[in-house]
Amino acid sequence: MFEMHINHGLQGIVALETDISQVNGTTGTLEYRGYDIHDLATHSSFEEVTYLFLYKHLPTRLELTKFCDELSTQRDLPDKIVNVLHQLPSFTHPSVIYRTAISCLGTLDPQLKVISPDENLRKAKDLIAKTPTIIAYHQNIRNHSPITRPRDDLNHAANMLWMLNGIEPESIAVKALDLALVLHAEHTLNASTFAARISASTLSDMYACVVAATGTLFGPLHGGASQQVINMLRTLEGKDQAALTHWVDDKLSHGEKIMGFGHRVYKTMDPRAFELRKMAQQLDELTGKTWVARSDQLADIVFQKKGLYPNVDFYAGSVYANLGIPDDQFINMFTMSRIVGWTTHMLDQYNNNKLIRPLQKYCGDENRSYTHLDNR
Amino acid sequence: MFEMHINHGLQGIVALETDISQVNGTTGTLEYRGYDIHDLATHSSFEEVTYLFLYKHLPTRLELTKFCDELSTQRDLPDKIVNVLHQLPSFTHPSVIYRTAISCLGTLDPQLKVISPDENLRKAKDLIAKTPTIIAYHQNIRNHSPITRPRDDLNHAANMLWMLNGIEPESIAVKALDLALVLHAEHTLNASTFAARISASTLSDMYACVVAATGTLFGPLHGGASQQVINMLRTLEGKDQAALTHWVDDKLSHGEKIMGFGHRVYKTMDPRAFELRKMAQQLDELTGKTWVARSDQLADIVFQKKGLYPNVDFYAGSVYANLGIPDDQFINMFTMSRIVGWTTHMLDQYNNNKLIRPLQKYCGDENRSYTHLDNR
Repeated sequence: MFEMHINHGLQGIVALETDISQVNGTTGTLEYRGYDIHDLATHSSFEEVTYLFLYKHLPTRLELTKFCDELSTQRDLPDKIVNVLHQLPSFTHPSVIYRTAISCLGTLDPQLKVISPDENLRKAKDLIAKTPTIIAYHQNIRNHSPITRPRDDLNHAANMLWMLNGIEPESIAVKALDLALVLHAEHTLNASTFAARISASTLSDMYACVVAATGTLFGPLHGGASQQVINMLRTLEGKDQAALTHWVDDKLSHGEKIMGFGHRVYKTMDPRAFELRKMAQQLDELTGKTWVARSDQLADIVFQKKGLYPNVDFYAGSVYANLGIPDDQFINMFTMSRIVGWTTHMLDQYNNNKLIRPLQKYCGDENRSYTHLDNR
Repeated sequence: MFEMHINHGLQGIVALETDISQVNGTTGTLEYRGYDIHDLATHSSFEEVTYLFLYKHLPTRLELTKFCDELSTQRDLPDKIVNVLHQLPSFTHPSVIYRTAISCLGTLDPQLKVISPDENLRKAKDLIAKTPTIIAYHQNIRNHSPITRPRDDLNHAANMLWMLNGIEPESIAVKALDLALVLHAEHTLNASTFAARISASTLSDMYACVVAATGTLFGPLHGGASQQVINMLRTLEGKDQAALTHWVDDKLSHGEKIMGFGHRVYKTMDPRAFELRKMAQQLDELTGKTWVARSDQLADIVFQKKGLYPNVDFYAGSVYANLGIPDDQFINMFTMSRIVGWTTHMLDQYNNNKLIRPLQKYCGDENRSYTHLDNR
């Protein structure tokens, strides 16, 4: 057979064309539908960004109000889903619970298999609206707290904190979570989004695609990273510069990865990390924690040794930890934001579909002759 | 920005190297680890093929006996999973039920996140063993029949028919299902297998990968096709040659696809379709049905008009229909076989991992200036 070029990890391969978002890894810029992420981080909100992705333009105030109403009235869950959340064992990781619940939610949708622009949009909004509720109800259940029902007078971020904690959230906490949601909403063809598009490319249903994406996000090389970063930062508490340097050297000499550094696309500072660092610093001042100071120290050492920049996962954990979110729920904060990017990509895939199916090169023995079981 | 070549659907792109299986689309050959599919179809069994994939060599009789025992003792499900099956609504598609149950099964595994060759192999065998039980228990539940527990004196195919119907299966039925399982076990980087590998490439857990794969298989352009083929064949019952030709012409003139024809890789007869056709014909003779006669007529017309050959989905439905398997369970027959390929690919991905993450080309507006909400 002719020699084939193997594109390991599909690195550098352009798989498709979209108008959803754009990353420039050299300049460290990210645009959502052409709008710079720093502008959106400063002036926008999760709901506005979600509208921008789903409708391809920034909303007027009237459009935004109507959209926020739509989302907030769809937040509550069918009882059957709450029952399933009660059934699942308490030791389970919340991301696994989430994907199980989404798969169940699909089973309740009589329009499951209908793919049309209107239906796709309805499902996208429903999935975005219900995602925080699934996460929060499970958190209530495992805390042995009463279920805290969503409030339709709160925005997406505020309502999430309300449901998680059962108390009125402070405005800085709402601002911080909203910022994290804006920053995580979409990031081109990362592994989970790509999995969602492959699933959509067989014309599978949207719940199936979200489940595929969530399963893919779960890996420590993807959405699982922020929990690992915070674990690492906890173990490094109290270490001075010399001890930190020694720790980094030790890791590197064993060929181990330091979580939260480097990115397949960014070869400079991730613009999302820049924004999250600012917010984490504000929160540190309020809570008296030193997440950012410690993170900065570590980042300096890693940069000197490896030339790697911190990525989005590196400072996200410091924001969430300051908000009192349990470590193993960090990934679900990612999910409640990234579901916007996932659903937007699915709509795009359905709209102009071609089955995604690459080739492989075979490297094993060929033409082996079969020997009957008795003669082996 | 420089001009990028867009590889729509990743067609023709070689994504990785494996020693698992090989397809030659021009000669119409398929090899599992170097063994020709016709040899395996004629002489082998689902369990033997499964062993071949997981252990990379054909088993001796002793190895095969031990392996069959391992699978058969792991068949039954935890009560929590049976409870979840009872909870899910009856109108739900069985493939959605299956993926929900697999996601739940992951929540029960305390070793969920442990990735090691031994653990991966254990999970692969457990997933392969339990898949038919999930499918059959749900079928029992929606039939309002008692749960039929697995029997460890039956092979994989026979036990499945036993659980589905609660009666001792005939040997020709066992042979037919076993053949279908052998033929569907693995097929290089189809969309569901590729989704499983992407999920594994983030080091996500094996249940997550199976869920991603199952969601992807669900699409009518992939595993959902055999159900659509049988629907089509039912509507064509009793039509003569002229009526069939008219029906095909009408479909083609409206730009519609005729299900069960053509394949991204095969440009000739799919060798699996050849084997399934033979078996469907044997079954037709026993049941007095005319699935194959009608299928052949349709295949001739489609070939004349479009030059397309029938694919694996085209005759699979005729085998399943003859076995009395409900139409909406056809995809789960595919799943209970393909889970072998999925898990084998996951093991391969974990073993030599590189994150799968392609690029995209951005085609929307760039550098848009953000206008504040009040000024829109």
